[in-house]
Amino acid sequence: SDNPVPTPQAPAPDILRCAYMELIVTDLAASRQFYVDILGLYVTEEDDEVIYLRSTEEFIHHNLILRKGELAAVRAFSYRVRAPEDLDKAVAFYEELGCRVERRKEGFTKGIGDSVRVEDPLGFPYEFFHQSEHVERMSWRYDLHIPGELVRLDHFNQITPDVPRAVKYMQDLGFRVTEDIQDDEGTVYAAWMRRKPTVHDTAMTGGDGPRMHHVCFATHEKHNILAICDKLGALRRSDSIERGPGRHGVSNAFYLYLRDPDGHRVEVYTQDYYTGDPDNPVVTWDVHDNQRRDWWGNPVVPSWYTDGSLVLDLDGNPQPVIERTDNSEMAVTIGADGFSYTREGDAAGTYQGEAAKGFKLGHQL
Amino acid sequence: SDNPVPTPQAPAPDILRCAYMELIVTDLAASRQFYVDILGLYVTEEDDEVIYLRSTEEFIHHNLILRKGELAAVRAFSYRVRAPEDLDKAVAFYEELGCRVERRKEGFTKGIGDSVRVEDPLGFPYEFFHQSEHVERMSWRYDLHIPGELVRLDHFNQITPDVPRAVKYMQDLGFRVTEDIQDDEGTVYAAWMRRKPTVHDTAMTGGDGPRMHHVCFATHEKHNILAICDKLGALRRSDSIERGPGRHGVSNAFYLYLRDPDGHRVEVYTQDYYTGDPDNPVVTWDVHDNQRRDWWGNPVVPSWYTDGSLVLDLDGNPQPVIERTDNSEMAVTIGADGFSYTREGDAAGTYQGEAAKGFKLGHQL
Amino acid sequence: SDNPVPTPQAPAPDILRCAYMELIVTDLAASRQFYVDILGLYVTEEDDEVIYLRSTEEFIHHNLILRKGELAAVRAFSYRVRAPEDLDKAVAFYEELGCRVERRKEGFTKGIGDSVRVEDPLGFPYEFFHQSEHVERMSWRYDLHIPGELVRLDHFNQITPDVPRAVKYMQDLGFRVTEDIQDDEGTVYAAWMRRKPTVHDTAMTGGDGPRMHHVCFATHEKHNILAICDKLGALRRSDSIERGPGRHGVSNAFYLYLRDPDGHRVEVYTQDYYTGDPDNPVVTWDVHDNQRRDWWGNPVVPSWYTDGSLVLDLDGNPQPVIERTDNSEMAVTIGADGFSYTREGDAAGTYQGEAAKGFKLGHQL
Amino acid sequence: SDNPVPTPQAPAPDILRCAYMELIVTDLAASRQFYVDILGLYVTEEDDEVIYLRSTEEFIHHNLILRKGELAAVRAFSYRVRAPEDLDKAVAFYEELGCRVERRKEGFTKGIGDSVRVEDPLGFPYEFFHQSEHVERMSWRYDLHIPGELVRLDHFNQITPDVPRAVKYMQDLGFRVTEDIQDDEGTVYAAWMRRKPTVHDTAMTGGDGPRMHHVCFATHEKHNILAICDKLGALRRSDSIERGPGRHGVSNAFYLYLRDPDGHRVEVYTQDYYTGDPDNPVVTWDVHDNQRRDWWGNPVVPSWYTDGSLVLDLDGNPQPVIERTDNSEMAVTIGADGFSYTREGDAAGTYQGEAAKGFKLGHQL
Ligand SMILES: [Ca+2]
Ligand SMILES: [Fe+2]
Ligand SMILES: [Fe+2]
Ligand SMILES: [Fe+2]
Ligand SMILES: [Fe+2]
Repeated sequence: SDNPVPTPQAPAPDILRCAYMELIVTDLAASRQFYVDILGLYVTEEDDEVIYLRSTEEFIHHNLILRKGELAAVRAFSYRVRAPEDLDKAVAFYEELGCRVERRKEGFTKGIGDSVRVEDPLGFPYEFFHQSEHVERMSWRYDLHIPGELVRLDHFNQITPDVPRAVKYMQDLGFRVTEDIQDDEGTVYAAWMRRKPTVHDTAMTGGDGPRMHHVCFATHEKHNILAICDKLGALRRSDSIERGPGRHGVSNAFYLYLRDPDGHRVEVYTQDYYTGDPDNPVVTWDVHDNQRRDWWGNPVVPSWYTDGSLVLDLDGNPQPVIERTDNSEMAVTIGADGFSYTREGDAAGTYQGEAAKGFKLGHQL
Repeated sequence: SDNPVPTPQAPAPDILRCAYMELIVTDLAASRQFYVDILGLYVTEEDDEVIYLRSTEEFIHHNLILRKGELAAVRAFSYRVRAPEDLDKAVAFYEELGCRVERRKEGFTKGIGDSVRVEDPLGFPYEFFHQSEHVERMSWRYDLHIPGELVRLDHFNQITPDVPRAVKYMQDLGFRVTEDIQDDEGTVYAAWMRRKPTVHDTAMTGGDGPRMHHVCFATHEKHNILAICDKLGALRRSDSIERGPGRHGVSNAFYLYLRDPDGHRVEVYTQDYYTGDPDNPVVTWDVHDNQRRDWWGNPVVPSWYTDGSLVLDLDGNPQPVIERTDNSEMAVTIGADGFSYTREGDAAGTYQGEAAKGFKLGHQL
Repeated sequence: SDNPVPTPQAPAPDILRCAYMELIVTDLAASRQFYVDILGLYVTEEDDEVIYLRSTEEFIHHNLILRKGELAAVRAFSYRVRAPEDLDKAVAFYEELGCRVERRKEGFTKGIGDSVRVEDPLGFPYEFFHQSEHVERMSWRYDLHIPGELVRLDHFNQITPDVPRAVKYMQDLGFRVTEDIQDDEGTVYAAWMRRKPTVHDTAMTGGDGPRMHHVCFATHEKHNILAICDKLGALRRSDSIERGPGRHGVSNAFYLYLRDPDGHRVEVYTQDYYTGDPDNPVVTWDVHDNQRRDWWGNPVVPSWYTDGSLVLDLDGNPQPVIERTDNSEMAVTIGADGFSYTREGDAAGTYQGEAAKGFKLGHQL
Repeated sequence: SDNPVPTPQAPAPDILRCAYMELIVTDLAASRQFYVDILGLYVTEEDDEVIYLRSTEEFIHHNLILRKGELAAVRAFSYRVRAPEDLDKAVAFYEELGCRVERRKEGFTKGIGDSVRVEDPLGFPYEFFHQSEHVERMSWRYDLHIPGELVRLDHFNQITPDVPRAVKYMQDLGFRVTEDIQDDEGTVYAAWMRRKPTVHDTAMTGGDGPRMHHVCFATHEKHNILAICDKLGALRRSDSIERGPGRHGVSNAFYLYLRDPDGHRVEVYTQDYYTGDPDNPVVTWDVHDNQRRDWWGNPVVPSWYTDGSLVLDLDGNPQPVIERTDNSEMAVTIGADGFSYTREGDAAGTYQGEAAKGFKLGHQL
């Protein structure tokens, strides 16, 4: 990176895991229908302005907030830290980086205590907190479970123009890379990074940013994800399904991408792998490998590459979006000069200037 | 239809079910790898020219034959009849229709006794038999099952230009329609018909024909189908996956379409519904309903509409393909003047002149 | 059998399938909670006296009736016949057998037309009907499905003292045996018989009868059955689980047995096999084979052998229960002189005078 | 505890996770058949004396060792530590406790480097290591997966007479309690403890010890566990199934217990919950709650309570087994004076002096 984020002298806070996302939604009733009636998240608390939601297994107050606002956007990517003292570390870490930092002893949201919010070096609104009210873990409440039960908040995914720059900063913050997508020239298209021992707590996706690519919940089994699709079909809302279901190459997880009523992207995901050892092998995928993002070679729809949610600064204004100058993954794989292969070096199964199976149309009509 | 197949005076044979398909394949080793090593069908018998295969539950000699030949094609769509006497009925039925009929007491294939083969009024090579050697039903042989275990031969699917003409003939043969796809003008794009009480033993798909669209095996659960995709990915053969997995609107089954080494299409499918009552409700789908073929609104790839396997006459020569003159389902849904909707009358989720989610590319680049 | 039921000259009605059971329950609210709130059956119609229920796939008015009464019992085992004329055949068939027969043009229950009820030669209240109101098939209503979704009425199971006598009568009625349990001396302990091409529409279980052993609904997948157990646990009603879940040897299906608030036994079941060919191989199991009733060798609890529901005559009075004089399956497998083996002739895994794994307690304390 | 293990001044090593178990087996071929042919573990390396196995996801050399020996026993419970320096800490920690400690720079087994083995204060042979050869993670090798695929080593389970004493020592070693089973008087019957953020890396089960209760592998889905049972049935080895499958109350996981050819107990398990937060809520179960060990109220077979594997000292001699003096869980739940309830205080569903559903036999015959 030409413009590296310096490594602070101050030690990073000890982050446990991605904990919750705060979304601004423009129609609270519509969003409630999507997240509560369809996806079945549990309401911890709600009023006319904000709904606090959680998935089955969560015992802290919420792992998703829907807040009514004018502009659909992300107000916070929030991480839980191990101890109250880690908040002091977070303040020092970001102040040393010259970031805007705001701390509130009473928290920024219900159910959460002392918290630090920052505008991070990449432009994202990051939050750190330790204290939270405990609520019922619904794991044993099978009387309330639905076929598409969402069990855990699994990860965030962020869009940023310069992935190596983002990775280096996140490593300074204590994250470890588990997988990435590169090309032969070393351009990095995306990287996955974790604190908890799953494939990621967040990923950096190369693109115009800062924007939010998606927030992801995990299910127990694959049929739970299929049930979400079936239900959307029954409700005549299949156009909420953006991509999938499918099997990721990266992470090896089974996945589905939805778009909420504001276009915020939600992934549902299951069965990645344990990554908690310090020498956990990093997997690097070739950007031209057609199985990297879908192990079955099904096409990535363009909107998945191009669309993302704005993120807010600490005043609630949208952060300006900076264009990516590195190659775009969409262009190098399905653009005019792009290609992707099923088997490296085998012309059969190599898609030139088009996407895989889904996009044969133009060539045949 | 302008050219209806007359209704014979002779009674139709009492057909139990679709029983097996005989495929001509050009590379027997490659096909064996696909059907045996990958899909896990059980080999009943084989030599250098032909392989007799069956799925888990089958107790007759085979439900798929791979026969080596110069030209990839279908040599027989074979149905089992209730009793030996039904073969006399089959002869009389087709002779009255003026069809070429050939009967062999010793059968046309190993494991099968007295059989009747015909060139039917639609040009398809249909076979009828009753007697078959019994082999081990592998249902209890869990020591041999694989993650993608194929349990039953479920149905055939045939391409024919004039669907109503085909349906009327099949009804005369004793089949009942369970579902179909039409438009407001009454054009019929496809119809599903059954003898056994599932959604179908065969379907008629409107298109240039006679050609074979696909042969379908059923699994027990949805994850079995996902496992086939995962395995193809692991073998770097994901380009064998043509369409899906997904949920059908028609039949309500979970599905996947593969292409074998010769391009013969194989479906894997599970969980349609019981249709055995005489007043079983027929479901008619609007051709513009974007959930009719994929309940989740995922696009049908063009090759699925356009490609099919040739079928042979009783001398082993390919039947000429006659063009469909009715509207094509692909053209009315994703062609220049076509459209499909998620919710009838709702412009949101209506795809004009393009397919659903998978084909947004052309509009954005 | 010493007392065979004579074969009528009159032809049997053409039975399509087991269609519904009418249960007398003593606490309608408690039963509603069990069948509707817990098991998720759909209410077609209900009032203070009776509730008409159906499973997902059913398009006739109901496949289970709960009727309030003083004495928990079965009022009808109801079969659907192919055509209205089959009711005349049913009348003639049973009148020739000297059975009490009652016909009501308006039906005995809501939603059902012209019906014949009989006290059959075994003492069971059998019903035959053809006409039924159609209702919505809920297969595509994924918005309403629950994790333990019951899809089809699969079969009945009846307790009768003399199984061969019962089988011969049922064969005269047009049923075919698919599997049975015998011993070396030819004693028959149970037999499974079908009209629709599954393993059974009803089974005859040797014991004091006539009594109803269970009514069974099918699910799509095995996890649906596990979800029912999980839900019962969450509701602190795990004592409703009598036996299982497990894998049957007989039928190869995955199963669970519940007891409703009156003690009526309900099975949930999935994935048996196609049996529709006339030469479908009959499977005979050795009564001492410890995998015959549970493929995993888990013990059958005694209540499963001993308990059953009374059945009513056409006046609504309970039929007297006649003792079985043949050997009891429980006695020959887990009684003082009984035994069962995992591998025939292998003392390891042979349980002498005790049941399999679950009953080791008495020998150890 | 009357005899507490003192808390060392030396800091505990930073343990990542339970990593492997070394088993002594008396018939290597029989054990290979069980673990490789049936359970499908991958062989990393093997010779005539020892087989190194791993599950799908493992990237270190092995997570199970089968070593041929005279006496079936456990030679090591091995934990991976975060850094090489943690081995020095392990030495200091255990030396301060007065334990026998042995360190080998070259490791005690193939594939593992510098290692510390100790006879811990409870008498168990514990190992700590950091360095290991990396091998292929088979997660993407779907071509090799089987229906019962074992994905991760999940946990150990140890039998020890004094559970609170064991817990206190394990807490000093850095473990956190997630769940336990107690009675009103505060007797602790079992406790679950973790390093990685699952319900446990090991559990302490009250009983005569030190003995090994079981080693547990995780699968992705519940049907994978059912497939193991089905396969054992097909191989006529259902007597290897000791208990389950079922749903645990404790841990909320779906489970199965098997016995290998030497009687070593192996659990297969899936879908517990995330426990990585320091304030993760501890769940305490009443020993009389009949859903604590099986959420469906199915009985725990006595052998599950009474049997365990011997463990070896560092010379390879079996450790003497010390009797538990606290109440036994079996006695207080299914013994003469024991009881368990489905609903606290509700006599219906309370089993007095007997186990739940499986043990009604003695009362009825
Ligand atoms: Ca741009
Ligand atoms: Fe993601
Ligand atoms: Fe099909
Ligand atoms: Fe049954
Ligand atoms: Fe365990």
